[in-house]
Amino acid sequence: MKKLVAEFIGTLWLVLGGCGSAVLAAAYPELGIGFVGVAIAFGLTVVTMAYAIGHISGCHLNPAVSIGLWAGGRFDKKELISYIVAQILGGIAGAGILYIIATGKAGFEIGGFAANGYGEHSPGGYSLLAALVTEIVMTFMFLIIILGATHSKAPKGFAGLAIGLGLTLIHLISIPVTNTSVNPARSISQALFVQGWATEQLWLFVVAPIVGAILAGFVYKMISPEND
Amino acid sequence: MKKLVAEFIGTLWLVLGGCGSAVLAAAYPELGIGFVGVAIAFGLTVVTMAYAIGHISGCHLNPAVSIGLWAGGRFDKKELISYIVAQILGGIAGAGILYIIATGKAGFEIGGFAANGYGEHSPGGYSLLAALVTEIVMTFMFLIIILGATHSKAPKGFAGLAIGLGLTLIHLISIPVTNTSVNPARSISQALFVQGWATEQLWLFVVAPIVGAILAGFVYKMISPEND
Amino acid sequence: MKKLVAEFIGTLWLVLGGCGSAVLAAAYPELGIGFVGVAIAFGLTVVTMAYAIGHISGCHLNPAVSIGLWAGGRFDKKELISYIVAQILGGIAGAGILYIIATGKAGFEIGGFAANGYGEHSPGGYSLLAALVTEIVMTFMFLIIILGATHSKAPKGFAGLAIGLGLTLIHLISIPVTNTSVNPARSISQALFVQGWATEQLWLFVVAPIVGAILAGFVYKMISPEND
Amino acid sequence: MKKLVAEFIGTLWLVLGGCGSAVLAAAYPELGIGFVGVAIAFGLTVVTMAYAIGHISGCHLNPAVSIGLWAGGRFDKKELISYIVAQILGGIAGAGILYIIATGKAGFEIGGFAANGYGEHSPGGYSLLAALVTEIVMTFMFLIIILGATHSKAPKGFAGLAIGLGLTLIHLISIPVTNTSVNPARSISQALFVQGWATEQLWLFVVAPIVGAILAGFVYKMISPEND
Repeated sequence: MKKLVAEFIGTLWLVLGGCGSAVLAAAYPELGIGFVGVAIAFGLTVVTMAYAIGHISGCHLNPAVSIGLWAGGRFDKKELISYIVAQILGGIAGAGILYIIATGKAGFEIGGFAANGYGEHSPGGYSLLAALVTEIVMTFMFLIIILGATHSKAPKGFAGLAIGLGLTLIHLISIPVTNTSVNPARSISQALFVQGWATEQLWLFVVAPIVGAILAGFVYKMISPEND
Repeated sequence: MKKLVAEFIGTLWLVLGGCGSAVLAAAYPELGIGFVGVAIAFGLTVVTMAYAIGHISGCHLNPAVSIGLWAGGRFDKKELISYIVAQILGGIAGAGILYIIATGKAGFEIGGFAANGYGEHSPGGYSLLAALVTEIVMTFMFLIIILGATHSKAPKGFAGLAIGLGLTLIHLISIPVTNTSVNPARSISQALFVQGWATEQLWLFVVAPIVGAILAGFVYKMISPEND
Repeated sequence: MKKLVAEFIGTLWLVLGGCGSAVLAAAYPELGIGFVGVAIAFGLTVVTMAYAIGHISGCHLNPAVSIGLWAGGRFDKKELISYIVAQILGGIAGAGILYIIATGKAGFEIGGFAANGYGEHSPGGYSLLAALVTEIVMTFMFLIIILGATHSKAPKGFAGLAIGLGLTLIHLISIPVTNTSVNPARSISQALFVQGWATEQLWLFVVAPIVGAILAGFVYKMISPEND
Repeated sequence: MKKLVAEFIGTLWLVLGGCGSAVLAAAYPELGIGFVGVAIAFGLTVVTMAYAIGHISGCHLNPAVSIGLWAGGRFDKKELISYIVAQILGGIAGAGILYIIATGKAGFEIGGFAANGYGEHSPGGYSLLAALVTEIVMTFMFLIIILGATHSKAPKGFAGLAIGLGLTLIHLISIPVTNTSVNPARSISQALFVQGWATEQLWLFVVAPIVGAILAGFVYKMISPEND
C-alpha cells in the first residue's frame, strides 16, 4: 500500500510538474520557459521522485515503465495492475490540481492542456506514422536507459539522474512531434480534461509506449551482462 | 552558533542568487535569462549550499523546511526558533546586498523586486485561490522530496542535487502564478524592501508554505519505510 | 558482440537525440530550444548511455573517442575496427529514423539536416582554418575530460556526468563554427543524407577529431598520475 | 610540473569555453545561447576539469581560488606563485585560441571580447561600487562553496558538481553587472586582447576577487567543523 501511495504521489508530480510547466509557463510573454524549460521540468519530476520515493516503490510513475521492467524480468507480474491503477489515478489528480490553478487566471481556455496528439493535433503538424515511430523509439530508448542504469553493474546512486535527464532529452527531441508522451498515464490524464480529439487519439499514446517498452525489455536482456 | 551562521549565509545566498538573478538578469534585452534562468539560479543556491554547509547546519535555508522537518520527526523543536530567526535575517541581508547592487544602475526603480504576490500582483494575474493552492502543493512536494531524499535508505550524497533541482522544478512551474515562494524567509525579505502590496499579501506566503510543509511531514511518515 | 550492439544502440541515440533535437525542435517558432537545447540534448545522449551501457561496452559512441583511448593506452587495438564499424552503422540508423520522423511533416526539406560544415556551410560563416582549429581543440579537450574522468584516481561514478556535460559545453561553444562534430560517426551519418557539400567537406570532420584525440592521448599520459 | 600543466590546460579551457561561448554563440541570431548558455558553459568548464584534473592539481583554475584556499589553510604558500603563473598563462592561451577562431569569420570586430568592466563598460551600465560589491560578494560565496564542498565531512565526489554549478549560478546573477569575473586570470587574458578600457579597469577584477576569497577563507574557518 505504501508503494501505491508513493506511485500515486509521484505520478501526480510528473503530470503537475511537466504538464504544469507547459500550460502555465512555456508561452509566458518574453520570459517564458519554452520547450527547453518544459523538457527540464518533465525530467526533474523523475529526478526528484527517484531520490524521494525510489526506495519505497522503485519510482516507475508510468505504466509503460512498469510493463517494460516486467518484460525485462525486473518487476513482478502480480504488482503490475495495482501500480498502473495508482499511476493513472495519480496522473488524473495532478491534472486536476493543474486545472484548478490554471482556471485561476481570467480568460483561461483549456486549449491543448498539454495533451498528446498527431496529425493536425501534433504541435508541429507531424503525421500519424511519424508520431507512431517517435513514441515507439523514444519509449524503447527510455527503457534501455532505465534497465541499464538500474543494472547491478552500473554505478550506484546515479540511476535517478540518468533516467530523469533521459526524459528531459526525450522531450527536447520530440515535443514538436507529439507533445511527447512515452507515458500512457500522462496522456490519459490530459485527454480526460481536453476530451474530443485528445480522447480519439489516445490509443496511440497507450499502444506505442507499451510496444516500445516491451521491445526494450527483450533487447536489453540480450545485451545485458550475465550477472543480472 | 556555527549552525546559525551557516543558515544565515545560506539564506543570504538563496535570496541574493535567486531574487538577484530575477532582478538583474531575467529581462536583460535579447540575452536575458528569463524564467528558466531564474529557476536554475534558485535551485543552484540550494545545490551549492547543500554541499557547502549541509554538514554544518543541515542546510534548511527556509522556515517551512525547518517546520516540515520537525513535523516529519527529523528536526528538534528546541532549535526551531533560532533557525528561523537566522534564516529571516540572512534573507534580509541578501535582499540588502541585492538592493545596493541594483541601485548602482542609473534609473533603477524597485518595481516588484522579485516579491511574491497574487491577484493583480501575480506575474500572470492568477487569483488568490490559485496562489494558495500553488504554494501549499509546491511546498508539500518540496518537503516530500526533502524528507525522501535525506532518508537513510535513499542513495547517499545525492540529496543536495535532488532537493536543489526540485526547487528549480517548482520555479519552472509556478513563477507565473506567485513568483514562487515556498519559503517565508524569501518572501519576508523582498516584502520589506517593496512595502505596500507586498506586505499586505505577505500572510499567504507565510501561511501556505507552512501548511504544505506540515502536511508533507505527516504524509511522508505514513509512506516512509520503517527504519527511519 | 554484446559490446557492438551496445555501441550501435548508443551511437544511434547520440545521432537521433542530438541531430534530432536540432532538426525537429531548435527553430520551432517562439518555443524552440535553440542552440542551448541542442547542446543539452547532445550531452544527455552521452550521460544517459554512459550509465545504461557503460558497463557493457565502455560507451565510446565515437570513433575519435575509441582512437583517443587507444592512443592513451586505455583501449585494445584489436577491438578498434569493430567498434568504429558499429558506431558508424549506429549513426546511420539514427539518422535514418530521424529522416522517417522529419519527413512526416508536410513541406519538409532536408536542408542541412544538422550536417557539419565550414566556410559557406558553417552556420556562422567561419573559415576552413577556424573550423579545423575548433574541431582539433574541442576533440582534444573532450578526450582530456574522458581520460581524466575515467582515471582510477577520479571520483567513482561521476565520469558519465562529466563526459556528457563536457559534450554539452563543446556544443555551447562551437555550434556556430562547424555545427560541432568532434565525432566522425555523427558527421558521416548526416553527410550520407545531405550529400553534395556535406560529403565534400566530410574529410575535415573525420581528420580533425582523430588528430585532436590522438594528441590528447599522448598529452594525458604525460600529466597522468603514475598508477594508471 | 604535472600540476602546473594541468592548471594551464584547465584555465585554458575555462577561458576558451566560458568566454568562447559568449563571443561565438551568445548573440547568434534567433538560436543564440544568451546569458543562460554562457553561465552554463562557464560552470561546465569547471565541472569537466574538476573530474579530469582534480586528482592531479586540485583544479583551481583561478588565482583567487588558490589564494582563498591558502587563506582557509588548505593550500601551501610555496605553490601559490607557480599555480598563479600557470593559470594566467593558460588563460592567455585560451584567449589566443579563441581569437584565432573568432577572426575566422568575415567582418569580426573584437568589441568587448567578453572582457570584464564597470560603469560604461558594464553590460548593463552598473556603477564602480555595484561592480566592486558584486565581485567581492560573488567570489566570497564561490570560496565558501569550494571550502565547504571539499571539506572532509561533505559527501565524497560531489564537490566538482557543486563548485562548477556554483560558477554557473554566479554568472546567472552577475553577467549584467560586470560580465562576471571572480577570476583574475580570466580578466587578464581578455583585457590583454581588448586593451584600452579593459586594461584600465583590470585592477578591480584582480583586487575584488582576491579580497572576497581571503574573507571567505577566514569566515569558513570560523564555521567549519573541528576535524578539518
